[in-house]
Amino acid sequence: MRKKPVIRQRREVARSRLFRIEALDLTFSNGVETTFERLVPGGFGAVIVAAMPDPETVLLIREYCAGTDRYELALPKGRMETGEDPLEAANRELSEETGFAGRTLSFIKPIALAPGYMSHATNLVLVEDLYPCEAEGDEPEPIEVVSWKMDDIYQLSMRDDCSEARTIAGLYLVRDFLAAREKTNAAQ
Amino acid sequence: MRKKPVIRQRREVARSRLFRIEALDLTFSNGVETTFERLVPGGFGAVIVAAMPDPETVLLIREYCAGTDRYELALPKGRMETGEDPLEAANRELSEETGFAGRTLSFIKPIALAPGYMSHATNLVLVEDLYPCEAEGDEPEPIEVVSWKMDDIYQLSMRDDCSEARTIAGLYLVRDFLAAREKTNAAQ
Repeated sequence: MRKKPVIRQRREVARSRLFRIEALDLTFSNGVETTFERLVPGGFGAVIVAAMPDPETVLLIREYCAGTDRYELALPKGRMETGEDPLEAANRELSEETGFAGRTLSFIKPIALAPGYMSHATNLVLVEDLYPCEAEGDEPEPIEVVSWKMDDIYQLSMRDDCSEARTIAGLYLVRDFLAAREKTNAAQ
Repeated sequence: MRKKPVIRQRREVARSRLFRIEALDLTFSNGVETTFERLVPGGFGAVIVAAMPDPETVLLIREYCAGTDRYELALPKGRMETGEDPLEAANRELSEETGFAGRTLSFIKPIALAPGYMSHATNLVLVEDLYPCEAEGDEPEPIEVVSWKMDDIYQLSMRDDCSEARTIAGLYLVRDFLAAREKTNAAQ
């Protein structure tokens, strides 16, 4: 494995309410010096949740997205709060955004947004054995919940209003995770 | 379809060499007023490239990522330049990062990073019929090129050093795009 560049200096170059931008002065193992910028998230990381009311169906939400200025279909997600682990955060976000929580939770993996210039990780969690559990969120308007068949992930992913990389990656990963689990169970 | 919130005001709240952060004052259709922040990319958008030397294989690169401070396996990608369309940018980035370009290019779809707070779109392009074509990039050290079997996307996606949502989403989308194309061709 290649030797990582050395971070000679790290400094904050801009900050807003939500975002912090750092500049890193780097020396690569071949001697080349350069400066990269990266976004540093506040808080404790985030979760993205694939909640399945039955083995063929996943819950999506339709929500206004300020970045793209339109309503998007996506998996529920949100920031983790103080003291929460990813599974607790997944159930809380799920109950706030869909009115359900789950009894069986599986941590799939941390997903990165843009490893080149963002240090954010979003923890993908699969939630099964759902039960009704409503909680108050901080959304400015009620969120619409949409059930989607796992067999139709490709059709969903090619829609204009389903553009988010983490949602598309998360759905495919969960589908393959379930297939691998079923294979293991069948072999036992 | 729900009525979009009205953007009452838009203002820059922070800026660095690479990033610009805007605050949006919004009024939702139910009357609720709120302020969201979002990142606005400079430039002309980006491309992410799935280049296939044969129908079973895709080219990955291993590159140092400042956001996560480690080497990551990912699809080649980069910013579009003045006057380029996504297909031209895909072939240029590909030749800079892998030493190949392609004769058959297919635009798959624009992928969003985080629609809630980023307006970035990354255009997913499939490149086939490769030929050697080296070009000088602006990388601080040579990039390692790794061939990967399309059948092993799940194994790749579960590795710690393959964390990027756009790469995982892009690989699965390309696989399903190819399967759909084959089905259409077989039916003709």
